[in-house]
Amino acid sequence: MNQPLILVSNDDGITAPGIRVLVEAMKKIGEVVVVAPDSPQSGMGHAITIGNTLRLTKTDIFGDVLAYKCSGTPADCVKLGKFHVLKDRRPDLVVSGVNHGSNTSISVLYSGTMSAAIEGALEGLPSVGFSLCDYALDANFSHIEEYIHRISKQVLEQGLPKGLALNVNFPPKQNTNIRGIKICRQAHAKWQEEFDQRHDPNGRRYFWLAGNFVNFDKGEDHDEWAIANNYVSVVPCQYDLTAHHAISMLNEWDLDN
Amino acid sequence: MNQPLILVSNDDGITAPGIRVLVEAMKKIGEVVVVAPDSPQSGMGHAITIGNTLRLTKTDIFGDVLAYKCSGTPADCVKLGKFHVLKDRRPDLVVSGVNHGSNTSISVLYSGTMSAAIEGALEGLPSVGFSLCDYALDANFSHIEEYIHRISKQVLEQGLPKGLALNVNFPPKQNTNIRGIKICRQAHAKWQEEFDQRHDPNGRRYFWLAGNFVNFDKGEDHDEWAIANNYVSVVPCQYDLTAHHAISMLNEWDLDN
Repeated sequence: MNQPLILVSNDDGITAPGIRVLVEAMKKIGEVVVVAPDSPQSGMGHAITIGNTLRLTKTDIFGDVLAYKCSGTPADCVKLGKFHVLKDRRPDLVVSGVNHGSNTSISVLYSGTMSAAIEGALEGLPSVGFSLCDYALDANFSHIEEYIHRISKQVLEQGLPKGLALNVNFPPKQNTNIRGIKICRQAHAKWQEEFDQRHDPNGRRYFWLAGNFVNFDKGEDHDEWAIANNYVSVVPCQYDLTAHHAISMLNEWDLDN
Repeated sequence: MNQPLILVSNDDGITAPGIRVLVEAMKKIGEVVVVAPDSPQSGMGHAITIGNTLRLTKTDIFGDVLAYKCSGTPADCVKLGKFHVLKDRRPDLVVSGVNHGSNTSISVLYSGTMSAAIEGALEGLPSVGFSLCDYALDANFSHIEEYIHRISKQVLEQGLPKGLALNVNFPPKQNTNIRGIKICRQAHAKWQEEFDQRHDPNGRRYFWLAGNFVNFDKGEDHDEWAIANNYVSVVPCQYDLTAHHAISMLNEWDLDN
């Protein structure tokens, strides 16, 4: 069998340590092509660039791996990868990350890392987003390659059902080994926002978003639980946002007047 | 009963015609407070501003309606509305739009309009995003107020189940009247992207994203069908992206090696 073709992107930007970890891991299982943002895009959600131009520049930052930096968002990178860079070839796998910080629970909505993976899924490509739940500047990525391989190999072997992407989060490196991989649902949690109000040197007011993450979910089958208990969490995510269970209820409404 | 308190936002920016239509419609059913982007934010998906400061400036653009323009994304606007502007009050309804252009099918993922509504839902507030499926510069919004009222009044009366926001799309104004309101699912469709490659005056290459929308969905219960047949489409959307039906399948995978 030919080597699988793997498209790599991220949202922390092409110079981030996490994408280097992912490129090194992917080189061991396939042919790697990178299209990643030229600057950090954290919190970009599923943004795309529609009112502006996109730049795409070849770079040798990963040695002999074909790599491009892009002025756009993670979703733009996957689109450019699929429809321009790999125009005549079909990637066997799209991977995004490794994000420097957690994308568990509702963070998946704000996540540029997962938007790249979901963009891959929209194109019918098996896609996975990887995130390390460690915000430390010197976060240690050394314990995760084995798990990146296990998951990526299963995706390459088994494929993924149409419309799905995997959201994989790794616990921070601890003194004890990771306990394993848990298939999870997205935890019910939210950000309790506080806005830090300041004034600039000209006396004009500005704000920093400064929230606290609050977990309301007492289950033990969700991604927050897995990470808190030193497991790797894997959540299958879909891009059909329809709440199918609510359709019959809404059909009872009086919408004729 | 006191007048309901209604928080209005959008993604086309506070000076767009569509938000004016929505503010005028909401003034007839409640007390309106506006927090909207100071510039267009189309295609921003569920982006938030985390590495940068936010500005919030009072404006009298809507006469005696309390209104603020914000330097951030639609999701930022709803967060600032909830946690700062309306800190001690709870909105009864969050509405976003009226977007100038369609947000049917998978466009919901890229939509700043729907990110504002989903952000409202995350806060446990009944939330609706409205979009007019007409990209014409002089798009006519005159036929939709009646339907904005019908839907908003039902949401205020019935509430919405936790975790849901409504994605409402209106057909363009036609010679015949709108045929009614259809509760729908999100159509299975996608953008077939093409990148328009050009060179700037310095000879450097750049791209415009220029895709075609392709509908693969032969059903008659989805939003694309409703709009094509001159109905208003209402899709209940959820922010739990978990593909719960895939969890048992993934639990069969060999992830231990």
